[in-house]
Amino acid sequence: MFPSPQSEVDVLIIGAGPAGLMCANALAKANVNLRIVDKRAAKVAAGQADGISPRTIEVFQSYGIGERLLREACQVHVAAFYDPGPDGGIQLSSRAPDVTAPSARYPFELALHQGGIEAIFLDSMKVLGVEVERCTLPTTIEISSDELELADPTSHPIKVTLERLEQSDGKPREEIVRAKFVLGADGAHSWVRKTFDISMDGEHTGENFIWGVLDMVPGTDFPDVRNKCLIHSNNGSCLLVPREADGIRIYIQLADKDVLSPTTGRIDKDKMGPDKLLQVAQKSLSPYSLQPTNGINWWTLYIIGQRVASKFSVRDRVFIAGDACHTHSPKAGQGMNASMNDAHNLAWKLAFVVRGWADMSLLSTYESERRKYAQDLIAFDKIFSTLFSGKPLTSNNIDGVSHQQAFQTFGGFTSGIGVHYGSSVIVADTHQSLASNLIIGERVPPQKFLRAADAWPFELQDLLPSDFRYKVLVFTGNFSDCRQKERAESLVKDLEKPESFLTKYGSAGSSGSRFDFITISKTRKEKVNYLDFPPLLRSHWSKVLIDDIDVSGAVGGKGYSYYGVSDQGAVVIVRPDGYVGTIAPLDGVTHIDDYFASFMKA
Amino acid sequence: MFPSPQSEVDVLIIGAGPAGLMCANALAKANVNLRIVDKRAAKVAAGQADGISPRTIEVFQSYGIGERLLREACQVHVAAFYDPGPDGGIQLSSRAPDVTAPSARYPFELALHQGGIEAIFLDSMKVLGVEVERCTLPTTIEISSDELELADPTSHPIKVTLERLEQSDGKPREEIVRAKFVLGADGAHSWVRKTFDISMDGEHTGENFIWGVLDMVPGTDFPDVRNKCLIHSNNGSCLLVPREADGIRIYIQLADKDVLSPTTGRIDKDKMGPDKLLQVAQKSLSPYSLQPTNGINWWTLYIIGQRVASKFSVRDRVFIAGDACHTHSPKAGQGMNASMNDAHNLAWKLAFVVRGWADMSLLSTYESERRKYAQDLIAFDKIFSTLFSGKPLTSNNIDGVSHQQAFQTFGGFTSGIGVHYGSSVIVADTHQSLASNLIIGERVPPQKFLRAADAWPFELQDLLPSDFRYKVLVFTGNFSDCRQKERAESLVKDLEKPESFLTKYGSAGSSGSRFDFITISKTRKEKVNYLDFPPLLRSHWSKVLIDDIDVSGAVGGKGYSYYGVSDQGAVVIVRPDGYVGTIAPLDGVTHIDDYFASFMKA
Repeated sequence: MFPSPQSEVDVLIIGAGPAGLMCANALAKANVNLRIVDKRAAKVAAGQADGISPRTIEVFQSYGIGERLLREACQVHVAAFYDPGPDGGIQLSSRAPDVTAPSARYPFELALHQGGIEAIFLDSMKVLGVEVERCTLPTTIEISSDELELADPTSHPIKVTLERLEQSDGKPREEIVRAKFVLGADGAHSWVRKTFDISMDGEHTGENFIWGVLDMVPGTDFPDVRNKCLIHSNNGSCLLVPREADGIRIYIQLADKDVLSPTTGRIDKDKMGPDKLLQVAQKSLSPYSLQPTNGINWWTLYIIGQRVASKFSVRDRVFIAGDACHTHSPKAGQGMNASMNDAHNLAWKLAFVVRGWADMSLLSTYESERRKYAQDLIAFDKIFSTLFSGKPLTSNNIDGVSHQQAFQTFGGFTSGIGVHYGSSVIVADTHQSLASNLIIGERVPPQKFLRAADAWPFELQDLLPSDFRYKVLVFTGNFSDCRQKERAESLVKDLEKPESFLTKYGSAGSSGSRFDFITISKTRKEKVNYLDFPPLLRSHWSKVLIDDIDVSGAVGGKGYSYYGVSDQGAVVIVRPDGYVGTIAPLDGVTHIDDYFASFMKA
Repeated sequence: MFPSPQSEVDVLIIGAGPAGLMCANALAKANVNLRIVDKRAAKVAAGQADGISPRTIEVFQSYGIGERLLREACQVHVAAFYDPGPDGGIQLSSRAPDVTAPSARYPFELALHQGGIEAIFLDSMKVLGVEVERCTLPTTIEISSDELELADPTSHPIKVTLERLEQSDGKPREEIVRAKFVLGADGAHSWVRKTFDISMDGEHTGENFIWGVLDMVPGTDFPDVRNKCLIHSNNGSCLLVPREADGIRIYIQLADKDVLSPTTGRIDKDKMGPDKLLQVAQKSLSPYSLQPTNGINWWTLYIIGQRVASKFSVRDRVFIAGDACHTHSPKAGQGMNASMNDAHNLAWKLAFVVRGWADMSLLSTYESERRKYAQDLIAFDKIFSTLFSGKPLTSNNIDGVSHQQAFQTFGGFTSGIGVHYGSSVIVADTHQSLASNLIIGERVPPQKFLRAADAWPFELQDLLPSDFRYKVLVFTGNFSDCRQKERAESLVKDLEKPESFLTKYGSAGSSGSRFDFITISKTRKEKVNYLDFPPLLRSHWSKVLIDDIDVSGAVGGKGYSYYGVSDQGAVVIVRPDGYVGTIAPLDGVTHIDDYFASFMKA
């Protein structure tokens, strides 16, 4: 018997679903040394999760993969609400926007099968030289108990045994991997979570929901078949979601007795197969007809609890993300979005620590930010699901809130736009009034500005890509006003002082600069000369923007007022994941110094 | 000696520049049997033409290659006008929108080097199985004089000898190709044109212009270096155009004496090389500095006349397109645009005839439409170039029109948006008042509508792709109004009659249907049921649109008024190249029958 081969890696990702792939793609872009393994032999081919929220589209766009997502996915603009009519069948109660978050850059949801989403990540990673190692699963994982080793970010304190199946000789092969960090993105039944004995809150008390799911291309006379439909009927409730390629998905909430085996208490697929599920859906949709034109493409039954893991990390060395740490009903379509956004939140923090740019303490904000969000999501999901499973008409109110009203009230939440991270080393809630609509702890909302040099309108979000750099937005006010020009020049002097964050952390190392300065002036395009700005505020000519209307008269000129920035200007620090970290006045560089000093390393 | 191999092809394209590639890509998409040959060994690597007008972007988009073009090219939004200031150097006179055509979907020009443009076509064609045969040039071309053969669209009356250079044995190889149609897209010195002895109008009388061109990444303190600049100076005039990757191009108009050899009358590159050209540009730009940061990337000198070929085809069997039939000064950036739009105009007509859908007479509209356009372009170009080469300040007026005013007056022309094709078998100028802003003979301007089934906003131009089908836009008015519903149902009855164009030509053959019906109603999204429309008006659920504002409140709802369609509705026939062919009232199917009967074959 040969000894197992041994190797080292900075980050080992276990599980190549949406969370694992989002993290792997992000770290690959950041040039972090990583591996990603999955026990499955291939990516998901059909079915599984499919809904993508407006905020998640923004995140895809920030990684340069938004265009493809938009090209391949189905857009959902309208939510239709059906209730029982006077003759027993369902009838349209109302239609409303599916997305109600007013600041959404993409004011719609997308639907694309999980395999399509995974393919976008896989192709993006492949170009960067990273591929999923399939048929590979971990069999042991241990963290060193040596506190010195754990405190040293350059150490490899995690030992994982990987077993590779399906070798050409038919024998599994073992490998020992020593990792700096491990991400368990291994799903609702997470082996990583279980191995570290992390409990799921609500595990024994939470209510379970049983869902049946059908994918098909429908033949139907149901007029809202291309909209998202929340259907209350006397024959049960269901949720219909349009899909790419003329398809639809129907989620059907089922009663225990219809699905569970009375002896085992587990799902009994003999009691409820695709034909029976279709019959249930057909009854719910009555008087409208529904027939698959080409059979049922995919179906499943599952029991889901509303639960969140008691912790999201072990010693800030092993992390869990996605379904491994929170599970939801499919109703609000949040599961996959939360999973991918967990990974988006974690990736830049891992990259900063691996690069030696940040203290290990940065990593603790992953749990504080994402667990809080998961808990809010569970709370929301419970209300929403209860509402959804409630009896129609007479009881579709909770405290006077109708189904549609609830849907819209929660719009900020289901869109992902409203996510708010609380105070931490990377969220310093000061000087909010200087930019009242760039909410500290929330993502930068979209807004168009012109480049000073060529009046080309750009979406500011596109200038805040997920490139693992902090963005420093310098709102100078009107730079043609000599008072504001003086203030901006004074800012530059402060930035050039030896004690400023820029001097301390800003010297570009081998992995490039940590800061990207974007200057935004109120000057008019007819009058501006981008060369007037101090060189530090125009590292490249494309980095100077103006808040003016474009030559076509269609966009721009509303940024200062929309963001609530006054004529005195402000400096807005944007985290690498697109969330506002803190705000300072133009003469407040010391405040920014303090912000970065709390976690950044020289 | 072996005999030359012989083969047949439907369309042989000679020359793989922008015109040839546009035609090849289009015909490849239409599944037309074609070959394209070029004597050059590789695509253009740098330099050459670069400006892409707003209309050309729309055309790229119609072939599904607009996204890549937009991703790779540099946008030009502003035109800056410089004139001599009081101290002799130039100073900014004004800045204005570079594109002034109000209906442009893309209100800017693009700049991308010709190799980048060619690569877009080459990659698109490759997927369709068509590649350029390089190092291949024609040595003989003959058209049959047999009238019967010429009149038979299925015959191959053109015999071309192709010589392939650079064989592995070092010997050129000959091949005889018999083609149904040949396109000569072989440039300003077109061998095809010369072989058929087609004269260039103005060949002996037209004025020549001499231009020097420099490509570089500039180091400069010139504040408009990222805008298009029309610079009049006491030291000569020049045109500056920003380019992708921080580059710029400068066009410098030169005097004969500076460039031409007094003995030969030809360009003498010893008299004017890149260093001297740079000096001329530097003088023009004074007091601003200009230095290439990394040398001159590309340069050229050329003499160009303003000429148009006396005919664009020989017996409607051999065609010429692009520089082969019209040459211009580079000033208005129209050359490459005109070339590609020649090919766009010709491609669908060739496809229709090859498929047996249309009479050969359709092909004569290529010359009537494009030669007229080329003549207008020459006329415009002459005025514009004279203006440009005129002395500054005191003489930059022609009949009281300033340089900037002229620039804007000609906006419709330079944008390509204003192209208007006159009456012909495919332009029947009747019932214009029913859709007063869908000008018969002009391209359909952009406008957003919602899909009835899912309220997803779509740009109508994106529903009029260059897919070689006629689009039938049925504006029903408000379909919820029973009078309009009746009129639409009556239209359907007329369409189903045996004598209607749809019955006669509409039965889908092996190459698919010739007609794509798009229905546009004025119904509100909250009330519409797409299933209410007669099946003929909804061949697919995505084909029913409504003119309503979208759920975000941002777009839509202005289509009827913008297009000038009244509540009574209209049927608008859109040619496969996106130009309005004719218009009829809802009860005017016989008018449409007549339109198609004039050239279509059953």
